[in-house]
Amino acid sequence: MLVLGLMLTIVSPSNGGITSSYVRMSEASVDLPLSSLPSPPGYNAPEQVHITQGDHVGKGMIVSWVTPLEPGSKIVKYWKDGDEEHKKQAHAYTKTYKFVNYTSGFIHHATIKNLEYDTKYIYELGNNNATRRFFFTTPPEVGPDVPYTFGVIGDLGQTYDSKQTLEHYNSNSKGQAVLFVGDLSYADHYPLNDNRRWDSWARLVENSTAYQPWIWTAGNHELDFLPENGETVPFKPFMHRYHVPYKAAQSTSPLWYSVKRASAHIIVLSSYSAYGKYTPQYTWLETEFTKVNRSETPWLIVLLHSPWYNSDDYHFMEGESMRVMFESWFVQNKVDIVFSGHVHAYERSERISNIGYKVSNGQCTPVMDPSAPVYITIGDGGNIEGLANNFRNPQPSYSAFREASFGHALLEIKNRTHAYYSWHRNQDSERVVGDSLWFYNRHWFPHNESSNAATMA
Amino acid sequence: MLVLGLMLTIVSPSNGGITSSYVRMSEASVDLPLSSLPSPPGYNAPEQVHITQGDHVGKGMIVSWVTPLEPGSKIVKYWKDGDEEHKKQAHAYTKTYKFVNYTSGFIHHATIKNLEYDTKYIYELGNNNATRRFFFTTPPEVGPDVPYTFGVIGDLGQTYDSKQTLEHYNSNSKGQAVLFVGDLSYADHYPLNDNRRWDSWARLVENSTAYQPWIWTAGNHELDFLPENGETVPFKPFMHRYHVPYKAAQSTSPLWYSVKRASAHIIVLSSYSAYGKYTPQYTWLETEFTKVNRSETPWLIVLLHSPWYNSDDYHFMEGESMRVMFESWFVQNKVDIVFSGHVHAYERSERISNIGYKVSNGQCTPVMDPSAPVYITIGDGGNIEGLANNFRNPQPSYSAFREASFGHALLEIKNRTHAYYSWHRNQDSERVVGDSLWFYNRHWFPHNESSNAATMA
Repeated sequence: MLVLGLMLTIVSPSNGGITSSYVRMSEASVDLPLSSLPSPPGYNAPEQVHITQGDHVGKGMIVSWVTPLEPGSKIVKYWKDGDEEHKKQAHAYTKTYKFVNYTSGFIHHATIKNLEYDTKYIYELGNNNATRRFFFTTPPEVGPDVPYTFGVIGDLGQTYDSKQTLEHYNSNSKGQAVLFVGDLSYADHYPLNDNRRWDSWARLVENSTAYQPWIWTAGNHELDFLPENGETVPFKPFMHRYHVPYKAAQSTSPLWYSVKRASAHIIVLSSYSAYGKYTPQYTWLETEFTKVNRSETPWLIVLLHSPWYNSDDYHFMEGESMRVMFESWFVQNKVDIVFSGHVHAYERSERISNIGYKVSNGQCTPVMDPSAPVYITIGDGGNIEGLANNFRNPQPSYSAFREASFGHALLEIKNRTHAYYSWHRNQDSERVVGDSLWFYNRHWFPHNESSNAATMA
Repeated sequence: MLVLGLMLTIVSPSNGGITSSYVRMSEASVDLPLSSLPSPPGYNAPEQVHITQGDHVGKGMIVSWVTPLEPGSKIVKYWKDGDEEHKKQAHAYTKTYKFVNYTSGFIHHATIKNLEYDTKYIYELGNNNATRRFFFTTPPEVGPDVPYTFGVIGDLGQTYDSKQTLEHYNSNSKGQAVLFVGDLSYADHYPLNDNRRWDSWARLVENSTAYQPWIWTAGNHELDFLPENGETVPFKPFMHRYHVPYKAAQSTSPLWYSVKRASAHIIVLSSYSAYGKYTPQYTWLETEFTKVNRSETPWLIVLLHSPWYNSDDYHFMEGESMRVMFESWFVQNKVDIVFSGHVHAYERSERISNIGYKVSNGQCTPVMDPSAPVYITIGDGGNIEGLANNFRNPQPSYSAFREASFGHALLEIKNRTHAYYSWHRNQDSERVVGDSLWFYNRHWFPHNESSNAATMA
């Protein structure tokens, strides 16, 4: 359905790729003031609550929160919705960290295990007059035809636009978990990477992260590398604050891991760790692909921060080095979709691969390949750095649709063969779809897909 | 001069590259038995002595050794040759490490500072009836026309061939310091990476490493990554045993750093650490290139383990991912030579670059480029894995000379414009040159070079 007020002029070059001509008004993406992101009321009240999958199959949940003044209660009380008489509890591991002249609050991580599938749980943190209650719903048991809907968000930050993206995502009840493709707080935008901005970010997003698991990917803004100020351990704030179930995936680092959730096998990679042959990430991924069972989890999805196929001048070709290392595995293993962030715009690729290169054979141009993933860049969460709207011209043939707007996406897996994907611009009503596609599963139904984006013209 | 007994049939394809048809006898490369690499006599005698540059300019020396039974003396006594009455001393930092079921001896690292340039020093380790004396000569003060000769060795291991390579190198008195391009002990060839082989290797090479500094590069055999056995920290044995002056080069890791020595600026990179944009190695290298002063150190040399230009099927294209990231910097900064190892053969490239690629422009073939480095693969130290003699055919145009023989090289810097480079096969007398080239400095005399290799035909 075409709504007149949203009509777009579409530039469709001969190769069929679409560049939306929509140009977002260029007001600055200003961070929300710290004062607008306060701690919740009550002495030492738990804050910055976020949850993520806590095991490999979805029966566990890691619940994380911060108490600002003292350790406080380290207990998560939880119960099945409607069954408050049978409370259980899990105990947190608590730590603090220092970063230059900043000292963190007390960061708690508790892993709840052996939850029942497909069940709503209530959980409670804190004690005395500062208890807070939240809830989550566990996913259905892993299986090939289990419907499940993921939100997809990247490069969020904590601007007014970030807040709008979150509200937009929350306004639709479909999303059950978020695939987050890196760059969380942009604290490193501030002098000495003011880590109070890690706190404020976690307070901003709590209205989603406390209620549904966000699957975390590390981006460059998680590096927090300030050697001139003595901070020489990359990812220090991020790894203290965000725990992931990497050991359950036989990984040796929280920066690369996998989870199975409903009908999806989700692999998370790190663009900013070593990925050369023989390195831990490389050897882990090589083994991980052998563990993927498409009869159990038909949908194979990879998250990584720096996109391999990007036609924006902004960060152009930064992902090449990792692509060169891993692309052939992605094609051999028929990855369905790769979600990336980093570029502050939206772009969807054709199903293409570029794996014929042998240094001196001249074969280095992406070609259509039904075994290849679709690459989606969705680094348009709305952070302080603003939009990236310097698209390269002409639009390269690997690029199917691109637009410099803030937004988020939904991936609605219906069964083993079909998933409906839609990208939603912040400037539109959530019901308006900026780009969409019926994804056909590469293992079970490897037919050509056609997008609906062109129908916007 | 052509010696009849050494005559080789040379395959010279139309592009001019040369593949030596010499085929080394294929006896196995067997490791020396542990019993043939014993500890020196004397209770708790210092062993595994090795030295490396200890500061950024060559006035410091790191002296490292192991005492097997107890910490023993932590002191290095040293004095100028002929001036034993004025002894000085430096104190070591001592540590041990465990690796699966192995516990190391007491590993000592002492940094001697403020040495005089171009001076022979004697040094003494140990005490009581187990003292040992060694000596070294400091380099001349850094300057643009200071002659200096580097040995170049890679992938050494501890076989009979390794020993031959060492003896071959030691038989020529020209070499003043060794550029070692990674893969030291091959301890990981043994079950649980039997770390006794790290000890035996250090005893094998002591007759060189105790007397002249070896500049260390990490290779894949330094990873020692055995997560299934609880060893999840890459490079653990290597980093405990081999210290380098990385902090003097403002690096945050011993895996990438630089030293200035005589007329050379030497940059060491890690093929097995993160090198993506924004990572510590990337940001360090970006800054490092700005610090290179060709008026002070005309010769800009890079060491890294996994070669960027290799025409052997063995490890073909493994270095691509790092090349894609850094090659344009190497060309912009006119690196003179890149030494790599990894491939167990010898290969020298033309001066080529391949930096025009923009994903969809089809420009991906190496082209002659006078600003580009010569890439030399010299992973032919003689380790247990044997030679790599599956050269790809036809010889690609980027390859100037290649031969599957064990050996080492010498780089004799004469002044700011000229350096004589020669590669020496183990099977020949050390005076016979397998490949040679007068290198012309890229900053001061960027003329075309021509090799002497073809004169062997």
